[in-house]
Amino acid sequence: MSISPTPRPPYIAVIFSNQREEVDEKGYAQTADEMVALASKQDGYLGIESVRDETGFGITVSYWRDEDAIKNWKANADHQAAQKAGRKTWYRAYKTRISTVTRDYGLGD
Amino acid sequence: MSISPTPRPPYIAVIFSNQREEVDEKGYAQTADEMVALASKQDGYLGIESVRDETGFGITVSYWRDEDAIKNWKANADHQAAQKAGRKTWYRAYKTRISTVTRDYGLGD
Repeated sequence: MSISPTPRPPYIAVIFSNQREEVDEKGYAQTADEMVALASKQDGYLGIESVRDETGFGITVSYWRDEDAIKNWKANADHQAAQKAGRKTWYRAYKTRISTVTRDYGLGD
Repeated sequence: MSISPTPRPPYIAVIFSNQREEVDEKGYAQTADEMVALASKQDGYLGIESVRDETGFGITVSYWRDEDAIKNWKANADHQAAQKAGRKTWYRAYKTRISTVTRDYGLGD
């Protein structure tokens, strides 16, 4: 992963903080990769950044042009199946926060 | 780290995505711990979530009551010294995005 080259604000950031259960590592990893690939094909997708540490705590932030883009992504059938498996099997806890980025600044690439 | 028990939106999320240089691990870790402790004492602080993976890519999201709270935190002298060391030494690249959380939902604690 690396820092997403997002456009000038405003845009939407979906902050997904989560704690993995220690189960089904292979199935989870495969679906996670598929979801990143699928998200990147959606209209209005701007980027994704994702980190998980050795304790299973993770943060994924995806960036989107507007509310319509995240509504469409949330309704995507393959994504809905992955979300269901996440609730049932992969995550012990999670919180999703939808936010509007109003400004940014940085260093390097 | 765990998922922050933030109040009902709206509130501010500061998304700090960063790539560490492989230098000064000890000094960085000590300052990072100090900054988390210091942030939590600021007026308007709501929580912090932070993850770094084995490649040195990290995401830290801190949550704040309002713009005044993040302005005060950004202006804190110890925090400014840490930011300067970050730019000079610890980070190869970073991006800070200030956003307003408009809604959230979750599972578990």
